Amino acid sequence: MRRGDALAYDLYYWPGLPGRGEYVRLVLEATGAPYRDMARLEGPGCGVDAMMAILRHGHGEAFPLAPPFLIDGATLVSQAAVAAAYVGERHRLAPEDEAGRHFARSVAATTADFVAEAHDTHHPVGISLYYEEQKPEALRRAAEFRDSRMPKFLGWYEKLLRRNSAGYLVGAHLSYADLGLFQTVEGLRYAFPRRLKAIAGDTPEVMHLAARVAAHPRLATYLASERRLPFNEDGIFRHYPELDGD
Amino acid sequence: MRRGDALAYDLYYWPGLPGRGEYVRLVLEATGAPYRDMARLEGPGCGVDAMMAILRHGHGEAFPLAPPFLIDGATLVSQAAVAAAYVGERHRLAPEDEAGRHFARSVAATTADFVAEAHDTHHPVGISLYYEEQKPEALRRAAEFRDSRMPKFLGWYEKLLRRNSAGYLVGAHLSYADLGLFQTVEGLRYAFPRRLKAIAGDTPEVMHLAARVAAHPRLATYLASERRLPFNEDGIFRHYPELDGD
Repeated sequence: MRRGDALAYDLYYWPGLPGRGEYVRLVLEATGAPYRDMARLEGPGCGVDAMMAILRHGHGEAFPLAPPFLIDGATLVSQAAVAAAYVGERHRLAPEDEAGRHFARSVAATTADFVAEAHDTHHPVGISLYYEEQKPEALRRAAEFRDSRMPKFLGWYEKLLRRNSAGYLVGAHLSYADLGLFQTVEGLRYAFPRRLKAIAGDTPEVMHLAARVAAHPRLATYLASERRLPFNEDGIFRHYPELDGD
Repeated sequence: MRRGDALAYDLYYWPGLPGRGEYVRLVLEATGAPYRDMARLEGPGCGVDAMMAILRHGHGEAFPLAPPFLIDGATLVSQAAVAAAYVGERHRLAPEDEAGRHFARSVAATTADFVAEAHDTHHPVGISLYYEEQKPEALRRAAEFRDSRMPKFLGWYEKLLRRNSAGYLVGAHLSYADLGLFQTVEGLRYAFPRRLKAIAGDTPEVMHLAARVAAHPRLATYLASERRLPFNEDGIFRHYPELDGD
């Protein structure tokens, strides 16, 4: 484990929705590393205003385009997959061998793509418009996502899990890549419950991994706590029944 | 510089289009590292068949969901931003300080998001359908991309460049993050020439960086060579004039 000069990691993400921030928060929770969930805290230097100030003025030479981002002393890391890897690699929640370490980064980046596609089912035209303003497009995109993209991505994770006798996506131990898959399965379970139920039997190892992650002692405690934000219709994974198919 | 046990990097990407593979290829070319562009070569173990075999059967414990991917001995790295960082960090084409190194990864991941949004202007519903089958949706999404997303991303790069007196996105030297911005600007110049021309004056540092990258000695040689694939309508950046606005 190596750390910067801060006492705790500072995570910045929108309060009120799990979103992409949860992909970093889960890793922090699983490691047990001290962290502050800055935009959800009140007081000087905290809150959404503090997050917006960093988005406007940066941190050292770095400033992010968007949340989530993580600050560790002088280091600012943005992009959920990059920040999750940053924390995971510092706290033994990543493969230790060189090849595994790099492939885990690849897997997390692929999960970020999957998450973006899930988001775009309700916002296929763009984020400057409400869902209701792009519903015909959303119905078409969601059909493609359910029929083609969900089986493709989930089938790929399934193959990775079946190849690895340890039952993880990469390496001999739980890693941040597995936590990302867990969160994505939970998101799909919320947003596309009918579709996931229909195809979950094709990817039993994926479903088994999700259950194992949920049973991880630190994560089980976290998931039962008020720190865990519920999915909702402000987030990436939204339950609009009409997008979940017939 | 540290390397695996291979004599050369093996890059795998679809022949015939620059696509996401170009984000890795540019870094390889700029470093001067030996590499083989496997799917564009003929002979045993080469060609698209060889790429498909790895997509089906993997490389060691790893296998990628999609090209591009890079093989370096026992290591397989997929996802353009992750593979570009992998090469850049091994060949002094990345910031050397810890904070810069991590923020460069964040920047490259953000560029990958921008590229995905550029792609989705012509495929807003999904990749299983032709452009002609999703043209009404494409017209709406492209308008949002031109009016909102292009200025947002380009303006962010501009701010990063203005903060850094060295004139690079991150750190004191050219990095793979800069090469990614160059390729993206070139793609926009091809796909959205009218729109880019209209807003280029708002981001002079971005345009200046793109020109500097093009003048890099190794890259200038590469860009004039037959190894550089032209943009075309099979790729991510496609020139459909109707998507470039009025």
